[in-house]
Amino acid sequence: MRRARMARTMDEGLEAIFSPASIAIVGASRSKGKIGWEIVHNLIMNEYQGTIYPVNPKASAVHGIPAYPSVRAIPGPVDLGIIVVPIEHALAAAEECGEKGVTGLVVITAGFREIGGAGIEREERLIEICRRHGMTMVGPNCMGVMNTRPDVQMDATFAPTPPLRGSVSLITQSGALGVAILDHAKSLGIGFAKFCSLGNKAQVSLNDLLRAWGDDPETKTLLAYIENFGNPKNFVRIARDVTRRKPVIAVKSGRSEVGARATASHTGALGGSDLAAEAVFQQTGVLRANSIEELFDYAMAFSLQPLPKGGRVAVVSDAGGPAIMCVDELVANGLEVPELNPATAEGMRAWAPLEASIRNPVDLTPQGSIDDYRKALDAVLSDPGIDAAIAIYVPPVRVDEAEVARAVWQTAQGHGKPVLCNFLGRTSDSPGFVELVSHGVPSYLFPESAARSLAAMVRYARYLERRPGEVRRFDADPSKAQRIVDGARAAGRGRLNEVEALQLIDAYGIRGVKSRLCKDVGEAAVAAREVGYPVVVKAVGKDLLHKTEKRAVVLDIREERALRLEIARLEARLKQQGIGPEGLLVQEHARGRREVFLGMTRDKVYGPFLVFGLGGIYVEYLKDVSFGLPPLTDEDALRMIRSIRTFPLLEGVRGEPPSDVAALAEAVERFSQLVLEVEGIEEIDLNPIFALEAGHGYRAVDARVLLTPDGPPG
Amino acid sequence: MRRARMARTMDEGLEAIFSPASIAIVGASRSKGKIGWEIVHNLIMNEYQGTIYPVNPKASAVHGIPAYPSVRAIPGPVDLGIIVVPIEHALAAAEECGEKGVTGLVVITAGFREIGGAGIEREERLIEICRRHGMTMVGPNCMGVMNTRPDVQMDATFAPTPPLRGSVSLITQSGALGVAILDHAKSLGIGFAKFCSLGNKAQVSLNDLLRAWGDDPETKTLLAYIENFGNPKNFVRIARDVTRRKPVIAVKSGRSEVGARATASHTGALGGSDLAAEAVFQQTGVLRANSIEELFDYAMAFSLQPLPKGGRVAVVSDAGGPAIMCVDELVANGLEVPELNPATAEGMRAWAPLEASIRNPVDLTPQGSIDDYRKALDAVLSDPGIDAAIAIYVPPVRVDEAEVARAVWQTAQGHGKPVLCNFLGRTSDSPGFVELVSHGVPSYLFPESAARSLAAMVRYARYLERRPGEVRRFDADPSKAQRIVDGARAAGRGRLNEVEALQLIDAYGIRGVKSRLCKDVGEAAVAAREVGYPVVVKAVGKDLLHKTEKRAVVLDIREERALRLEIARLEARLKQQGIGPEGLLVQEHARGRREVFLGMTRDKVYGPFLVFGLGGIYVEYLKDVSFGLPPLTDEDALRMIRSIRTFPLLEGVRGEPPSDVAALAEAVERFSQLVLEVEGIEEIDLNPIFALEAGHGYRAVDARVLLTPDGPPG
Repeated sequence: MRRARMARTMDEGLEAIFSPASIAIVGASRSKGKIGWEIVHNLIMNEYQGTIYPVNPKASAVHGIPAYPSVRAIPGPVDLGIIVVPIEHALAAAEECGEKGVTGLVVITAGFREIGGAGIEREERLIEICRRHGMTMVGPNCMGVMNTRPDVQMDATFAPTPPLRGSVSLITQSGALGVAILDHAKSLGIGFAKFCSLGNKAQVSLNDLLRAWGDDPETKTLLAYIENFGNPKNFVRIARDVTRRKPVIAVKSGRSEVGARATASHTGALGGSDLAAEAVFQQTGVLRANSIEELFDYAMAFSLQPLPKGGRVAVVSDAGGPAIMCVDELVANGLEVPELNPATAEGMRAWAPLEASIRNPVDLTPQGSIDDYRKALDAVLSDPGIDAAIAIYVPPVRVDEAEVARAVWQTAQGHGKPVLCNFLGRTSDSPGFVELVSHGVPSYLFPESAARSLAAMVRYARYLERRPGEVRRFDADPSKAQRIVDGARAAGRGRLNEVEALQLIDAYGIRGVKSRLCKDVGEAAVAAREVGYPVVVKAVGKDLLHKTEKRAVVLDIREERALRLEIARLEARLKQQGIGPEGLLVQEHARGRREVFLGMTRDKVYGPFLVFGLGGIYVEYLKDVSFGLPPLTDEDALRMIRSIRTFPLLEGVRGEPPSDVAALAEAVERFSQLVLEVEGIEEIDLNPIFALEAGHGYRAVDARVLLTPDGPPG
Repeated sequence: MRRARMARTMDEGLEAIFSPASIAIVGASRSKGKIGWEIVHNLIMNEYQGTIYPVNPKASAVHGIPAYPSVRAIPGPVDLGIIVVPIEHALAAAEECGEKGVTGLVVITAGFREIGGAGIEREERLIEICRRHGMTMVGPNCMGVMNTRPDVQMDATFAPTPPLRGSVSLITQSGALGVAILDHAKSLGIGFAKFCSLGNKAQVSLNDLLRAWGDDPETKTLLAYIENFGNPKNFVRIARDVTRRKPVIAVKSGRSEVGARATASHTGALGGSDLAAEAVFQQTGVLRANSIEELFDYAMAFSLQPLPKGGRVAVVSDAGGPAIMCVDELVANGLEVPELNPATAEGMRAWAPLEASIRNPVDLTPQGSIDDYRKALDAVLSDPGIDAAIAIYVPPVRVDEAEVARAVWQTAQGHGKPVLCNFLGRTSDSPGFVELVSHGVPSYLFPESAARSLAAMVRYARYLERRPGEVRRFDADPSKAQRIVDGARAAGRGRLNEVEALQLIDAYGIRGVKSRLCKDVGEAAVAAREVGYPVVVKAVGKDLLHKTEKRAVVLDIREERALRLEIARLEARLKQQGIGPEGLLVQEHARGRREVFLGMTRDKVYGPFLVFGLGGIYVEYLKDVSFGLPPLTDEDALRMIRSIRTFPLLEGVRGEPPSDVAALAEAVERFSQLVLEVEGIEEIDLNPIFALEAGHGYRAVDARVLLTPDGPPG
């Protein structure tokens, strides 16, 4: 037996876990109902194509299969070890697997990190065992793995329901939820390629599987239940790549943890992890399902139907009410329900029942026959102005709902356009539902669910049409920026002063207002000429953090005489307050029609993330802001700017000229680069930034930069 | 046989329709599958307690019951006539019922108003027949009626599914949808008291039934599928009354008709019927379900569980994932998921499994036993800081889900707090579901549905706690207001001038800025002293609609010398433009920290409705406005003001004093009174209104009043 071995790659490990030629179930049990029995049972019942080695020192056979007293007693090689022994034997079992030369490990046994205390240490030792033997591990504390590929056919879970074979793969951070999903998905006709319950993710992570299954030819649609992204930056990088090839649909829990962050900063007050999570979804093209139900709804649509070419939808129904509800939901989700082509409508008029409404939505009324229904669906799908159809049917009125279902799927075939169905109130055990999904047409209980699912398909189709975007690198002076930050931190300061802050962003080519720090009125006059009138003069100094209160700012000075007069008055005012300013800051007096702000704040989980919004007091109450997780592509930066609701104000309203959106977008990209490259910054708030007319850029007027306190890097 | 009879009341008619002692089915058929057979079948199968008279000239019996060749041939009296004859015989059948002395009519036959043309005329004649004979009619073109009361037991529909008896009543404007609802509701264990498919609503309307069933002791919860409110004012009046006694849950279709209104006005551009519909829901306390699915979800919760006393919810689960999803949804819907009372947590620690998390949400993990589950649910329901609980269970892990279900409903009993259940992915045919709903605990497929339904219960409970509000009448001078409007219309003008507009609102006690119309600078000087400096001077005249462009406004004049100078300059400017002003308007120069606006616009369906919002350009993009349908109660007016997202700005932020919200609310009430009492106004836009500090009221600075063009009143 080999004692030392080469480190194997993660890919080799995953191959052993999901396509093993042989499996040892360490802790296999003869007692029905025990996990150690259920797994052996599931492997057998789903006709696993490799060799099963139950390991149980007290049994000669488990479920009719010869059992071995230990892993080392197994005669042949073992690719995958599944550990279901009691917690006190788990580490020994893993060690034994390692010694045997097992490549992949699935640890179902619980009692590790999730129980805290000794469990955490136990998990560390388990990881060490895996590392030492070059084993790749899923778990511990997980519900197992599946691969339905015909040459594997492995159900190594203790889920009670064998899955249907199909093209959906599921990664879940909640084992119980995962098993419930498999169970309910079967009743909906959703078939699976692979399944993985991640458990404690001690080794194999969400991101590992996302990357691996992004290239898996059996997996056409990826589903994930996510509690956290692991390393969010890795997730963004990997998911951005995978979503170009196949849809990734995810439910992310933890929305309500938002907002409790106790930070006084403006930007920070708007932050919070779910906002960062939302940015992750936006940047990666991962489709976020807002509930477990939507996860199923979307999975049905994506796994069964082709993507639509556009968002123009026809609705065919035998009843008006649900058709209207469907149209409402389609429109609310940004889809169109356009008039039919006149030729289409004309053709339908020839045969449609008198009572029928042959506009879109088409309402055949209960008077319409099954043949009418078939013809109507065929007509709208043949209409070049229609990209997709929803077929609604209220079953009780007609005799045979399976007949209608047949008409729907037969008509849908050959048009290459997605067709989603709503047999109102008909659950998965109804004949119409079974007829539909077994022929590749998803059917929903309610019209709104069909509408939302189709909208998700259109959203993804549009995402694929957009250019991927690229993370651009700009010429910058990172070492200068770092020097500014390091200098202030070395001096024990918690924030940069105004001049430093503007120098910091300038090092990354972000345009602040032109500024000169002057000693006296003479220097100020020179500076004002350089900067160009009108100017702003501010007294600076350590007693002058709150300049407005101290009346230490003079705006809109238009010529030198006024400058000298105002500086004299300013100095007199400060003297009265007992303040001796350390200098005078002369700045260009920038003004623009629109004020925006750009900020960076930190999240415990996501690290630095960016916030963009229109300036002003409204922002706080209307939360009209957008988020981004650096690094940002050029497309991400544009999306951040375009996705605020007040974006039309930047485009120009009421005949105003548009603001320089392109320049702002580049500023966002440069800001993203700064945030990633310069260390020691806790928060930045550029507020306000004046957006100037297109072609004239912008000016950041104020930059507030908080520094990370010294201490162990967090 | 009586030829002329007394007009009967609507109540007598509805009594005959829903509790008839005898029913004639005119058009009863011997052919199974025909509507005329199905209705007789349903009456028999549901054991109708009165006498059934099938009417069919070609049959001596239908479904074993003696048939009569005509209505007049029926020996005894007939309370209810159900007409299912072909359309060409429908009017004769109605006439015959009238002659027989039938009190109530349900016309199922289609081919009336819904097909247009001759159908409209046919419906008019049908109404005339009913009126002449004093008959009350449901339909035509409907699906029938039901009453499950034991002494009636009438299923006079052709729905395939007999309903469960229960306390929910359903009014539907879509027959097909209504039948589908009955069908699906049965599988969810929702029982019905009464059902009515309204059809074309030629006589009996949504509002008639709402009023009648508001007083029906069998009906505890009212459901409605609404396509339109009929007379929205009646709906508001009736629904406001009914919701004080029982919950009314409605789905309203037609959301997407919004926004297509081609009106250039500011207020108008924000209007649209669904916004008015939303105001109706807000003002009446009717709970709007946003989808058909939510209608079911809410119906289950309201019909089975008591209302919560507050919004503090505990979640008990055997799996973390769905518990988090549930908490997310609860919080998103404004409910609290507070920490448990320390004593509660302490008590649970004594027996809970090591792996369990005994904070709220309580996660027992799959290691928890059924007994643990029971004890945990009991503990949280006993906690005085908890008003309601959601019990989540992921079935596959345990053996007997019905056992768990039993633990839930048994524990729920006796606490008097609502308990909603989510057996994840378990549909209505699962043993757990059946066990739960048959013992009065609603069970949902998904945790989010349970959370939303509980949120609807809390919303309704809070609505009941609020004082009802009253429509106050203010002293006003309606005849003066009407004279102003009539005068301008008589002069062929489409709008009031500035002075008239301010006089109009003044007639209703709405404070505009003080204004004086003057002929010359001398009068202006006197006026300015009266109004008080600072003042604004505007030149007025028919060439001066666009005053800013013509530079015909001077703001912030502080004393008389400046006034005379500015007026001289103003006249010179206008002279250069060839304009001779007709007068000078001297106004107080009002300024407040916050600008709001208040408008009235008209909707084809809802008539005049009110819009309130914060002023400024943001309004257009952020749609932060609220709507009201007059007449408004004092509570409605306050709600309109409080429900905008930027309301905190009116309350005062950053140490600012609060605005005079009470005065603004009274202005909204007075405005509502004006809008209802003065005729000939098309739109009003009071914009801006300066909100002054609390105790100082507000000033409407500009009032734009468009008049209704002459012509037939619309």
